[in-house]
Amino acid sequence: MASETAPPSRAPPRKLTGKKQEIDAFIDQFDTFLFDCDGVLWRGSVLLPKVVETLEMLRSRGKKLVFVTNNSTKSRETYSKTFAKFGIPVTVDEIFGSAYSTAVAISRVHKIPEGKRVFLIAEAGIEEEFDAEGIPHFGGSQPLGFPDEDVAEHCGPDPTVWAVVTGLDRKLSYAKLAMAFGYLQDPNVHFFATNVDSTFPMPGRLLPGAGSCAAPLTLMTGRTPVAFGKPSLAMMDSIESKYKLDKERACMVGDRLNTDIQFGIQGGLKGTLAVLTGVSTEKEILEAGETGDGPDVYLDCLGDLLG
Amino acid sequence: MASETAPPSRAPPRKLTGKKQEIDAFIDQFDTFLFDCDGVLWRGSVLLPKVVETLEMLRSRGKKLVFVTNNSTKSRETYSKTFAKFGIPVTVDEIFGSAYSTAVAISRVHKIPEGKRVFLIAEAGIEEEFDAEGIPHFGGSQPLGFPDEDVAEHCGPDPTVWAVVTGLDRKLSYAKLAMAFGYLQDPNVHFFATNVDSTFPMPGRLLPGAGSCAAPLTLMTGRTPVAFGKPSLAMMDSIESKYKLDKERACMVGDRLNTDIQFGIQGGLKGTLAVLTGVSTEKEILEAGETGDGPDVYLDCLGDLLG
Repeated sequence: MASETAPPSRAPPRKLTGKKQEIDAFIDQFDTFLFDCDGVLWRGSVLLPKVVETLEMLRSRGKKLVFVTNNSTKSRETYSKTFAKFGIPVTVDEIFGSAYSTAVAISRVHKIPEGKRVFLIAEAGIEEEFDAEGIPHFGGSQPLGFPDEDVAEHCGPDPTVWAVVTGLDRKLSYAKLAMAFGYLQDPNVHFFATNVDSTFPMPGRLLPGAGSCAAPLTLMTGRTPVAFGKPSLAMMDSIESKYKLDKERACMVGDRLNTDIQFGIQGGLKGTLAVLTGVSTEKEILEAGETGDGPDVYLDCLGDLLG
Repeated sequence: MASETAPPSRAPPRKLTGKKQEIDAFIDQFDTFLFDCDGVLWRGSVLLPKVVETLEMLRSRGKKLVFVTNNSTKSRETYSKTFAKFGIPVTVDEIFGSAYSTAVAISRVHKIPEGKRVFLIAEAGIEEEFDAEGIPHFGGSQPLGFPDEDVAEHCGPDPTVWAVVTGLDRKLSYAKLAMAFGYLQDPNVHFFATNVDSTFPMPGRLLPGAGSCAAPLTLMTGRTPVAFGKPSLAMMDSIESKYKLDKERACMVGDRLNTDIQFGIQGGLKGTLAVLTGVSTEKEILEAGETGDGPDVYLDCLGDLLG
């Protein structure tokens, strides 16, 4: 009886060996590979081994590549320069960032009404994507227009404010939090986040992530933002729609179990591939497999796909 | 049987009438009155009616008065100037603020070791109280000593850091949060808060409170700070010890159910008195009474104690 109600079981994570036959069989299952970037392609400012060659090999076999990042501080245009710096050929259209995902959701799915605007706790990446989608915004990297200590005079409700959007904001201030809190006390004002990653990994250390900029607002209002980054299904829906993705022929490649691999599993992709060049360790991957939260396969590094 | 396991019941909150006899009977139960300040004595910049006369009447009847505030931005010395501005006679020793409570707990209860220091996300009030107790500190209102954007180079573990203390910090910055997060990743570093009030009431509006400055750290580390403000029992213990308080002859007076009145009830004081000049409404007070969380008695305003 118990087995009838158990969730469909997933096989334990399997380490791909270097055998050409096994690797080819794995690759041949998919038409599209979605890649997390930091921890998979590079680590901080260091390009990981044989990444350029591996992506080139996948392209030569006709695979579509999509680069999916929760980094909300850069627009797709700006993020493409990071690829260029590492010598990785990429087009802007192949990049799908949480800032872009948020902009598209606001303009095309939620359809912000005429005459309304968005208050931002975020950096320039979101502003560039909002400008491209024609979404009026204020806050963010722009001066507030008054001294921070006068915020009490400027943080009431505002009928022109339709939403508050939080991302990673390394210029976070009490004044911005006070203004956002003022707007969010109106339950009609939407509360969105590019992503709610608690931390922002840098080489050798962790810094506060976008979720840390939303946390005070959640404490004050009791409201949780709708997030558009991994592992949110809203991001998968946007990707599916933009790239005409056949999920049965797609694989998510990432280094973090709780964002990348969850994103692939919950998003209903046929495959998930973890690499050990980022956050999650082999031990964590095997443990996650015991609860059905592990990847299908894993590799020491992406370059091992070359065999 | 059920009645044997039920908690001791508390009578529903009772509104004190203006009858001299009833008011005298209430006052005569107590030797000490603990007062919340904002919402009880004044509201923002406005002194509430007959406050000076009421406090004078209590003093003339030999009552000891203690003013208990969660406001961590002012030292007792600085806070006494607010009383002077309103024309309320008070001595510094009658004021018990969360900044002072935190300083006393760190120096006398937790006994910070020689050569160690505290990183502050807080304002000058805590710094003054820490200086008075001889507690070494950095951060807070002091410059970090490097540009904020270089924080990644300055947020590692530091063996001299013994604790992180958060209070209300209207100069909160990403750099301070990143540094605190760096220290708190070491489980041996204490995590303290002056108080965890989510909001900071101002006339006509709410601003982010001290709890909002701690919330990102809780999200990132999974750690909850030990708080020394109302309704923390640590604050009641400090008050009991400093003033040789007989709880059976003490009454807490406040305007907020979830801080002031809870503080009195959980702290085991004989009496609790709510006033309707602040945050909690009569409806909320009566509803709280149904779950045993209401005050013993309430009044429209403190001045009604004059009869």
